[in-house]
Formats: sequence, structure tokens, C-alpha cells
Amino acid sequence: MYTYQYLLDFTRSVFMKMGCSEEHSETIADVFLAAELRGHASHGMIRIKDYYELWKSGRINVNPLVKIVHESPSTAVVDGDNAVGMVAARKSMEVAIEKARTAGTGWVATRNSNHFGIAGYYAMMALKHDMIGICLTNANPLVAPTFSISRMMGTNPIAVAIPALNQPPFVADFATTPIARGKLAVAEKKGEKVATGFVQDKTGKPSDDPSILKAGGSMLTLGGDRLHGSHKGYCLSSIVDIFSAVFSGANFGPFVPPSVAYLPVLEKKVGDGTGHFFGAMRIDAFQPAAEFKSKMDEWIETFRSSKPAEGEERVLIPGDPEREAEERIRKEGIDLVPAIRKDLEVIAKELNIDFD
Amino acid sequence: MYTYQYLLDFTRSVFMKMGCSEEHSETIADVFLAAELRGHASHGMIRIKDYYELWKSGRINVNPLVKIVHESPSTAVVDGDNAVGMVAARKSMEVAIEKARTAGTGWVATRNSNHFGIAGYYAMMALKHDMIGICLTNANPLVAPTFSISRMMGTNPIAVAIPALNQPPFVADFATTPIARGKLAVAEKKGEKVATGFVQDKTGKPSDDPSILKAGGSMLTLGGDRLHGSHKGYCLSSIVDIFSAVFSGANFGPFVPPSVAYLPVLEKKVGDGTGHFFGAMRIDAFQPAAEFKSKMDEWIETFRSSKPAEGEERVLIPGDPEREAEERIRKEGIDLVPAIRKDLEVIAKELNIDFD
Repeated sequence: MYTYQYLLDFTRSVFMKMGCSEEHSETIADVFLAAELRGHASHGMIRIKDYYELWKSGRINVNPLVKIVHESPSTAVVDGDNAVGMVAARKSMEVAIEKARTAGTGWVATRNSNHFGIAGYYAMMALKHDMIGICLTNANPLVAPTFSISRMMGTNPIAVAIPALNQPPFVADFATTPIARGKLAVAEKKGEKVATGFVQDKTGKPSDDPSILKAGGSMLTLGGDRLHGSHKGYCLSSIVDIFSAVFSGANFGPFVPPSVAYLPVLEKKVGDGTGHFFGAMRIDAFQPAAEFKSKMDEWIETFRSSKPAEGEERVLIPGDPEREAEERIRKEGIDLVPAIRKDLEVIAKELNIDFD
Repeated sequence: MYTYQYLLDFTRSVFMKMGCSEEHSETIADVFLAAELRGHASHGMIRIKDYYELWKSGRINVNPLVKIVHESPSTAVVDGDNAVGMVAARKSMEVAIEKARTAGTGWVATRNSNHFGIAGYYAMMALKHDMIGICLTNANPLVAPTFSISRMMGTNPIAVAIPALNQPPFVADFATTPIARGKLAVAEKKGEKVATGFVQDKTGKPSDDPSILKAGGSMLTLGGDRLHGSHKGYCLSSIVDIFSAVFSGANFGPFVPPSVAYLPVLEKKVGDGTGHFFGAMRIDAFQPAAEFKSKMDEWIETFRSSKPAEGEERVLIPGDPEREAEERIRKEGIDLVPAIRKDLEVIAKELNIDFD
């Protein structure tokens, strides 16, 4: 078990040794550790190695100039200058929040970025400003459109954070596939089968084999098959891709660059890097803030008191599981599996940082 | 078979006889017929009776003053004055488009409205202005959150329309449930079973009986069950509800008023009427319009050329099925089933309008 603070300091040191500024390293460490706290370890410490390898192969800019390249009163396009994704994303969300201050809402599309960790982090940045936060990102292609076997889209997540008064905020943060890529990887490592509705083989037949992705298979969109609404998951994932990439001038769909160094740089590019999309909406651009937040309390209390199905204890509000994970993990500490610990030991040794 | 023009004129006459202005009646007829043309008959002529009955029981305002009650440079809240939904919705989307002209984007939350037909109609209003259009609405409660048996949400649709250059526009318009309520009703009338994943019984057990909704059952969110991501459908449906109702001051979740006169007015209200949410985003607030639209052509061509699964002929782009339906129906005419024809005959007779 590691304390939150220990891993935060360690992560910051890793990125500083890679040449990132102290400010950027703090942002990066904050997002990695937020993923761990919120119970999304698949986007936490396990990903440090990916960035380390990208850096070693010269595929990341540790000294980026993230800047606005186009704007209107309520919008901007940000060029991430091939930064570590967290750096480009945090700056972009700050621009969205600034725009919202004067225009009521702010909308920022970001190109030339990289994997940014958990989308919910940026959406939640809006909360303390009495704003609603929104964050979308595309990701490297693993998912097939309905009726197709081609890997055209990432697991393209959507995050929306909405403040309340006495209740904790409403925070939705979910991939537009039935399950996350990380959970398939875990099942694969354990040699386990998965339920149908998650992946298909290279001909488009349903499969329960998580390793099928290495044999020409692909992930399915939310809904699973056409009968159960996979075309709606395809719509969602497409919208995330277009908002993240076509709005910004990043690579879309199958051209999104890989976020790991062991996959080669793609031959064809249709834009710059990975794309994200951010939104900030001032509550009082719609309703007096106190009134809105009190109404959100009522919404949350109403939904939390819905009747559980037989065998279920309670009905959750989006954000409940992550908040409860955070309370627990802050107390108990963060557990790293041996494989990740070993990766971090190697990195620490190579960079001459303490880690134990 | 009826021609488009015949049913358009008839529908306009019905609403004019009910006391709506010529302008409002034209809007209402235009939306009803757009649903028929786009192959969504469940939102077309079949719904005229519902409005007629609401009008007869004095539950609709045919002479409304739809007005902005709160605004910022990029946002507004519109009070629909209990208008026919199409009237409140069209005006609201016009406000969003006007806001976008000056602020880059425009966002309008609407309260005190009613059922507005197909969400895609309003999203598509943005296209000819070189804008992206967005439309959400809540609806009367039939859908249970994950782990619950309480009917807390409507089938809360999401529509997003994005212009292209030589390709037809990208138009997604979908309920946040695996299938539409109308399709369950059709199966029920035919005495057919449905696939599991659509509805559950009053204890929360999966059911294949579409009539279960009349026995305390409920519809499931997109994803179907927790394992297959129903919590993501619950997130989506919640977001639509909050944006439509909490932003605007309309009724949320279980308090959304019924859109048919045979269901009583609800005892408790937490706001005014039904709520909608509209967005308009000027393309050139992000990219030069020609460049953006040409990139959308490339996006569409790339996705349309993805490889079909075995047994499938082609991969569709959101909006393809509706556009193809429209081409066919404009040529062949609109077919009305006997039950709907009979309803319309009764209305025509009572209002002293020709219909045959």
C-alpha cells in the first residue's frame, strides 16, 4: 500500500526528470492520482510507463507551448503542441471556464494532444466555479461501427459534472462502449471469458474471448448489437470523435495516433495528434445559482429514493461509486499490483529517483 | 396513400380550427410531417389525436406568448407558455441560432412546453446557417434507473446535426433506451413478444412481454443491464433530463406531465410543463466553414467505407436511414393505418374539415 502523497510526489518527480516544468508535472501527477482515487486504476499509475516510453522514443513534447489558435466570444480552438495530454487538457478547460465567465458558456476543441487520463477530472474543474463541466475525447481505434468489422473509433468517453448544494455533485464519466478496454485486458490476463456483447471476431460474429482483439476482432459500441441499440452507441462515439477532432483539426476515427510507444506511428494523418472537447456552462446563465443547486439536490434525492429492484440494496447517482472509492482509498492507501510496481521501479532506477 | 402536401394542409387546418395562429399551425404541421417523411411515424400523424384531446380538455394553450425569461450572451431560458411543443421548440431553437451568430454558440433551455415531435427537426434547423444543431428533451416517465424498478425518466432523446459539404449532413436522433416506446406498442398490439433487454417486470426481472408496462413494469436504459452498461444509458438519460428541466425550471424525471389526455394531470409538480434543451454552434467559431465541411465529407466517406461484417451489405452514417426514407416516401406517399385514419376522420368531422 502506498499513500496518496507518496505516489503523487513520485509521479511529479518522474515527469520533472523527463524535462516537464514543475507546474506541468504537478498537473500530470494530480490527474494520474485522481484516477487512482476515483477507482479507475486503468487510467492511473499503470499509464506512467506508456508516457515514459513515448518520451524515450521522442514522441512527446515535454516543453510545449499550449495556445489558442482560433476563438469567438464563447469558443476557442487550442493547439496542444504535442504536450502530455493532461497539460493540454487542463489549459483547455481553463480557457473554457474563462470564456464562460463573460459569455455564459465556453467551448474549447483541442488538437495536437495525447492521452489525458480520466475525462471526469476536467469536467469537475468547473464545479468550484458554479459551472457545469463537460469533457469528451477521442482515442485510438478499437471499436467497430454497427454492421462493421473495421476498428474505426476509440472508447470515446463522455464526462459531465453538475454542481448541487448539500448533495455531492452529479458526475457522469463513461466510455461509449459497454465496458472499458482495461477490463477486457484484465480478463485476458486471467485467461477468463467475458459476456457476449462486448467484442466480436474478425468476421463480425459475437465472441466471449477478450483476446480476440489481437486476432482481428473489435470492440462493440454501447448497446452491443443493432437489436439492442448499438447504432445509438455508434452515434454517441461518432459525436465524441467529431467534436474532439473535426472541430479542432486533430486526427479523427481510425487515424487517432496510438498512446503507446510499442505501436508504430500511423502512416496516414488527417490532422494533428489526439483531439479533445471541453465545455463550461455558468449555472447563472440559466438560473440563479442557489436555486439551481437546490433543485439539483431535489433531483438527486428523488432519484436516490427510487425503489431498488429485488436483490438490489440501493439506486446510485452518477458519481456515487467514484466518491465512495475516493473516501475508502484516501483512508486505506493505493495498492499497486506487482507488475506495475516493477515497471515503476525500472523507471525510477533509470531516472535516478527513489521508489520503494 | 396520401400525398405529403395533403396531410400537411390537413394538419395545418386541424390546428387552425383549434385556435392556433396560421404561423403556429404551419410550424406544427411541418414537424408532424417531417416525422412521417423521416420514417418516424410514431411521432407523426398518430400524435395529432393526443393534441386534439389535450386541447378539448383545456390542457394546451393555443394562443401562447413564448418568451425569453433569462439570458446571457450565449444562453437563454425560454418559457413556452404551455404552447403546443413544436411552437415553443421552434422559437427556442431560433433563439439559440441568433445567440450563436454573435457569441459563437447559443444554448437555450425551455420550460412550460409539451411534446414537440422529433428532436432531429430542431437540430437540423441549424444546418442551413452553417451551424451544428443539438436538441434534447425529457418526456413522461417510463424508464427505470439501473438497479431500480421505479419509472423515473422518459425515453429522453438526443439529436445532433452536423453539416458536410458534398455529403449529406450527419444527423443522429435517438432515444436513450434500446428501442422506442412506439415499437413496444406495436409489438403489444400484434400480441408479439420482444427481445430481452428492453423491459423488466415490477420486481426488476428481465421480461419479453411488451404489455408489462401496464403491470408495473418499466423500460430499461440503453445498455439493458448493468453488465452491458445500462448505467451509461442511465447517465445519458439523466443528463438529458437535467439539461431540459433543471436548467429551464421545467418538471424533471417522474414529474414530467403526461402528453396524453387520458392520463390525469400529476398531483405534484416541481416546475412548469415539459422541458427541452437546444444548442447551436457556428462552425466558423471553430474552423473556417469550408474547411470544416470538407473535413466532414472526409469523415463520412471514411466511415461509410468501413468493412461490413459478414452478411451485412454496408455501413451506415447517422442520418442515412431517415434520408433514404424521405426520398422514398416523397415519391410513394404516406400510408396511414386504418386506426389512425379513423381517428383523423373523427377529428375532421368534429372540426368540420374535409378528410378522405
